[in-house]
Amino acid sequence: MEAELIKHIRSLPGTDLIGDDAAVIGDHIITVDMLTEGVDFLLAETDPTWIGRKALAVNLSDIAAMGGIPHWIFVAVALPQKGALELAEQLLAGMRPLIEQYQLILAGGDTNTWDSGLVVSITAIGRVSERGVFRRNGGQAGDRILVTGPLGGSILRHQFCFEPRIDEALYLNKQYNIHSAIDISDGLTLDLHRLATESRLGATLFESAIPIADDAFKLAKQSGRAPLDHALSDGEDFELLFTLSPEEAEKLLSLQPFRSSGVTLTDIGELTAEPGLRWITAAGDCQPLLPRGFEHGSSVILKSV
Amino acid sequence: MEAELIKHIRSLPGTDLIGDDAAVIGDHIITVDMLTEGVDFLLAETDPTWIGRKALAVNLSDIAAMGGIPHWIFVAVALPQKGALELAEQLLAGMRPLIEQYQLILAGGDTNTWDSGLVVSITAIGRVSERGVFRRNGGQAGDRILVTGPLGGSILRHQFCFEPRIDEALYLNKQYNIHSAIDISDGLTLDLHRLATESRLGATLFESAIPIADDAFKLAKQSGRAPLDHALSDGEDFELLFTLSPEEAEKLLSLQPFRSSGVTLTDIGELTAEPGLRWITAAGDCQPLLPRGFEHGSSVILKSV
Repeated sequence: MEAELIKHIRSLPGTDLIGDDAAVIGDHIITVDMLTEGVDFLLAETDPTWIGRKALAVNLSDIAAMGGIPHWIFVAVALPQKGALELAEQLLAGMRPLIEQYQLILAGGDTNTWDSGLVVSITAIGRVSERGVFRRNGGQAGDRILVTGPLGGSILRHQFCFEPRIDEALYLNKQYNIHSAIDISDGLTLDLHRLATESRLGATLFESAIPIADDAFKLAKQSGRAPLDHALSDGEDFELLFTLSPEEAEKLLSLQPFRSSGVTLTDIGELTAEPGLRWITAAGDCQPLLPRGFEHGSSVILKSV
Repeated sequence: MEAELIKHIRSLPGTDLIGDDAAVIGDHIITVDMLTEGVDFLLAETDPTWIGRKALAVNLSDIAAMGGIPHWIFVAVALPQKGALELAEQLLAGMRPLIEQYQLILAGGDTNTWDSGLVVSITAIGRVSERGVFRRNGGQAGDRILVTGPLGGSILRHQFCFEPRIDEALYLNKQYNIHSAIDISDGLTLDLHRLATESRLGATLFESAIPIADDAFKLAKQSGRAPLDHALSDGEDFELLFTLSPEEAEKLLSLQPFRSSGVTLTDIGELTAEPGLRWITAAGDCQPLLPRGFEHGSSVILKSV
């Protein structure tokens, strides 16, 4: 469905869909993300403040993926009739710490009640850094592929409390020549596949290099799958995946500028002229790697632009 | 609920909610409107192309109310699982004529499916005209109050096929000194009350001057209410309500620059230093007029900013 609808949309006059996390209009970056009950969260099982936080954080993560500075937000919600006011207040309370942290301006929105589930749609607008934006399509063959944190198992906790990599992205944008970037919203291999494809390249990962989150190990005990499998394909890590020259990567990795804030950069592989994804297993074999990830029950059609 | 939540939102740090139809950021105008099934449309009874058209047109109407030039749109939808692709295509097909007419760019969005009703949330971004934007709070005592078309009964048809007053607003912005403006989305008296209140003024309407739509007469036969009552309080007319000096109003009314495109301007009253709304009845009495309108079943909290 995704591919078909995007094809249809691209056939519309004036359509300007590019394969990035957000659109760039002049010196502004604009992104829209809608969260729906039962797909992105279970209202009965989740503190609404966490839902509000997540709805905003996913948008900030998109702006981080562009190396931009978030600034204004617009919050549109469809609230179930019963307890609508209390729910709206809780959603906003959950956004509040991020609004303060990044000095955001809540500039508008549209609040509706209806006889159905909760929908939160946030439009976030950021400013383009003076160094320009990160794109998905700027990767170069030979680039090292780095990631800002361990992956997998986000469904246990991380999906609601992750820190959007705004500050890290701004630092990287300022200090390094980042060739391409994306945030890992739908799974490492799926999002890497998108970045590589947009760059008309492929990628090789190193199995032993993939940083695996503690929650991926926990989840593996429940799922019966390998922790590594969760790290490769679980969605909603919202870590930054980016590429840069081997020389710059080496400098950056030796510096580890975000370690004091608990963020360790890891080199997980390289972009290749040969298309497709593959990985070098711990045993030293090179095997094809199928892009897999979380597409919201195959439902995300236009992800996060 | 509306007042309480707005109060709560305004207490948030960084909140910049002004009483206009859209937010202004630099030289851009941004508006978000979310339509929900069962409140803004009945999916079972409405051709989805009309729903798509309406979702876009209400946003364009907000940009018209600011005297701006619409340019980019972002479409976020939550689609019922069954028939999601077909529905999405129909929604987009309904937007297509407006996209072509105003040379809009569909720059992004977020498409989701879920096990519930249809939600369409559009973010529209326009450019500020070189003459600046219309505000609700710029009205001056003594201003004439004009409206771009007949009112009432929109639920029968007009709510889905109205023309956003983009071209008229741009012309007015260029050629006249418009003091204040709003689009009539929730009913004449309610929206006039908002404009007058933002301008710290009141308003007097003339009963005999209110232009009543044909559909208000039709609806009156079903509702048992007076056609005028529908014109005063029905929502979703999406005509432009604006104020300007008596001298400019006289010039504009004698010129009727939009008559060739079927749009007749009508002078319906004046802004007054005395707060509150009142009207001069056909019998010549001055009576207080209670602001009434369509608040989406008392559900619209942040309307159309």
